[in-house]
Parts: sequence; C-alpha cells; structure tokens
Amino acid sequence: MTYCVGLQTNRGLVFMSDTRTNAGVDNISTYRKLYTWEVPGERALVLMTAGNLATTQAVVSLLDERNLAPDDRNPSLLTVPSMFQAANLIGDTLRSVIVSRLEGGRESTTTFNATMILGGQVAGSPPRLYLIYSAGNFIEAQTDTPFFQIGETKYGRPILVRAYDPDMDFARATKLLMVSFDSTIRANLSVGTPLDLQILETDTFRLGHSRRIEDTDPDWRAVSDGWSDALRTAFESLPDVDVPA
Amino acid sequence: MTYCVGLQTNRGLVFMSDTRTNAGVDNISTYRKLYTWEVPGERALVLMTAGNLATTQAVVSLLDERNLAPDDRNPSLLTVPSMFQAANLIGDTLRSVIVSRLEGGRESTTTFNATMILGGQVAGSPPRLYLIYSAGNFIEAQTDTPFFQIGETKYGRPILVRAYDPDMDFARATKLLMVSFDSTIRANLSVGTPLDLQILETDTFRLGHSRRIEDTDPDWRAVSDGWSDALRTAFESLPDVDVPA
Repeated sequence: MTYCVGLQTNRGLVFMSDTRTNAGVDNISTYRKLYTWEVPGERALVLMTAGNLATTQAVVSLLDERNLAPDDRNPSLLTVPSMFQAANLIGDTLRSVIVSRLEGGRESTTTFNATMILGGQVAGSPPRLYLIYSAGNFIEAQTDTPFFQIGETKYGRPILVRAYDPDMDFARATKLLMVSFDSTIRANLSVGTPLDLQILETDTFRLGHSRRIEDTDPDWRAVSDGWSDALRTAFESLPDVDVPA
Repeated sequence: MTYCVGLQTNRGLVFMSDTRTNAGVDNISTYRKLYTWEVPGERALVLMTAGNLATTQAVVSLLDERNLAPDDRNPSLLTVPSMFQAANLIGDTLRSVIVSRLEGGRESTTTFNATMILGGQVAGSPPRLYLIYSAGNFIEAQTDTPFFQIGETKYGRPILVRAYDPDMDFARATKLLMVSFDSTIRANLSVGTPLDLQILETDTFRLGHSRRIEDTDPDWRAVSDGWSDALRTAFESLPDVDVPA
C-alpha cells in the first residue's frame, strides 16, 4: 500500500508521500513515489503515485522520455501550456499503460490500476491540484475540498478534516501532514518511513523546500512522540460522560 | 457499513455499536446490531454484528429459537457451559447460515459474509471477548490486543491505540469509544448515530449500564464538539518543525 497527501493552502501546495511498497507482507521495499519536474521561473510540477508499481514507474518513464525529445510532436510536461493539459497528458499516459497490460487476455481490471496526485503551477495561471484516476479522468481540488489523499487514506483523514486551515504556513502544513502520516504508520504496516516532502510556493515557479524524512529525523520524532502525549492530554481534557464508573 | 468496538478493561467489558445499514448510499436504514442475553446472576452475553444484515439477523433468530426450546438437544446460549462454547455455537450458526445461502449455484463467497464480536461472562470463568469470522472460527482478545473492531475500523483506530488504558473505568472507556466513533462518523457516511452502548461489569453476571445514544445525547454532543477543540489544541501544542514558513 501507500499513503500520499497533496494539500492546497493560500501560500501554495504541500506534498508528502511514504516510500513503502509491498507485494504481500513478506516482500517489502522502499521506492520513491514522489516525482518532480521544473522549468525554473516558468513551471514546477509534483506527481505522487499509488497503486501498481510497474504501472506508475512506466508512466513516469514515458513522461520523462517525452521531456527528452522536445522535437517530437508529443506534448511533454515541460511544454504543455497549462496544468490542465499536464493532468490530461498524465491521465492519458496512465490509461494507455493500464490498457496495454490488459491486452492478450488478462482479465483483471484492477491488478494494474494506479491513482495519482498532480500539483503544480505554470506561469500565467494559479496553482492547481488534481487527483487522477486509472481511467485517465481527474478531479481538481477546490476550497471545499482542499486536499487529496491516495492509498491507505482512512487512518490519517480525521486529523486532516479537523485541523486543516487554508491560512496555515508551510511549517504548520508540514506538521499537519506529519501527524496524519504518523497516525497511519502506527496503525498500518503497509505504510512506512522514510517520507518525502515537497513544497511549492505560489508564484515562485520553482520547486521549493524538499526533504527526505527518515525515521530518525528530529522533527519527525518530535511530532510523532509529541502527538502521543498531546492526544492523551486532549482526551483528558474532554468532559466526563454520565456513565456509572 | 458498520462500526462496532468491544473493549476489555480490568473492570469488565464495554461494547459500542452504530446502527446504520446501507445497500448503496441511496438505501440507508437504522437497525440495531447489538444483541444481549442474560441469566441474571449466572451469565450475561453481548453480540455485535457487521456484514450482510440478512445473515446476521438469521444468526440471531436461530440463536433465539434455541433459547426458546430448552428441551431440545441443541445447545443454547443460555445453557452452554462456557464463553468458548458460546463462541463455538455462534460461529457454527454463522457458517451454516452463509453456507445455506451459497447452495444452488450462487458463486459469490463474500456477499453473505459477516463478522461478529462476542463478549460476556459465565459463572465460574473470567470474562471473555471474541472476534468471530464468517468461516465460524474465532480469536480471543488478550492483554496485548485488548479490543476488537469490526466494520469500518480504520478511522477510529488511532485514538484507541493511543489512549487505551486497561485500568480505565467505564466512564472513561465510554468516552474513548465515543471519540473513536466520532472520528469515524465525521469521515464516513456509512456509519451513523444512534449508537448502542452496553457495559458488562466483571463478576456481576448481569447486563450493566446500557444506553441508546442519539445524536442529541448531551454526553455525545459534549465529546463530539469538545474533541474538535481538543484536537486543534493538541495540534497547537506540538513543537514547530524546521521548514521555511
């Protein structure tokens, strides 16, 4: 499994991804699932992937090959005129990879599936955040739904729903994502450190702060250990209920 | 879907269940999923169910019919000599109901499935808490794993993992379960109030405090509203992370 979150704030976009992949519990590996592209000063894009690793790696490889062949008539992530076109390009690539695996009689429609979160900004437009499905279609985040999760989404959702604030700065947003990931990692073996963090500040058109967060990262340890105590304190602070002790 | 939790503490067992059933999002009903049996002073049992409603209602009806025919050679929940035998009886009944639906060519092995949490105490033995699978087999809670969840388990798990304490009294245990249910209900439409609460105090051999918790219940409202504030305060209390703001 996997856990990735893309978060939209008034200052920009924040992305966090785990790195654990598994084929059963006895075959666990570490793979990067967060990919970036940049034309400094003009565009910056971040893609996070969940689902079949062969599918998602094939999609990223195809996208990269197009970037290396600028004279080709195929559009590339480095040249498409908008984030909408970038989402279209990735969606089409994703669908074609999945369809190609289904030819020749493989029946399963779900084995090769993947979902992706795409965020970024191209000069001339505001930042955009998309959730791309394996059918190649996608939805865009709005102020009512300012974040997307993919993979093992349930454990870490309650804190996102409660503590998200569109005005939060990048440090607070990172802290919120760390709490959400910590809740997930404590409850589910298929999500694990290290984590990848990437920040895109609005109107910089560059990749901002990024970091690989190892299990020994002092910020991660402080949040993870502190959250246990904070949750217990929060629980203590609740009023008593009228039940015979 | 459904959400039920059975919790083992040093004072006894605490059970909480939601009441929402759904066949798609456009067919939602309220059904009780928490059932009790009692021979005052000798035994008290609580059963909570998740899964196919036709299956779980059939199981409970069959168990009740056996209770009404004490001269029958079939064992009944009111006469079996131990909680282990009660779990066996329920598991066998569950499996036979599922198997009977699969005869005649229905292929699906999962459509009629259900899982159940059984807890209780029979005079002469300590309280027991079991998780019963649709195959009729079951596992028992131990001090390392002092609670069972069935249904939509993921949203409400992080707080259980963090705040559970075997020495907690029934009021605190109820509060913990309310928080776990609140996290689930806020994030998932398929779980909803009213909730059913049942307490079994060790060595009383009676059904203890029970309550139907409506959405307007003052304790529930206080916990639900208080938890939003408490979580935000907890989040505020975390140390800042070293990320450019």
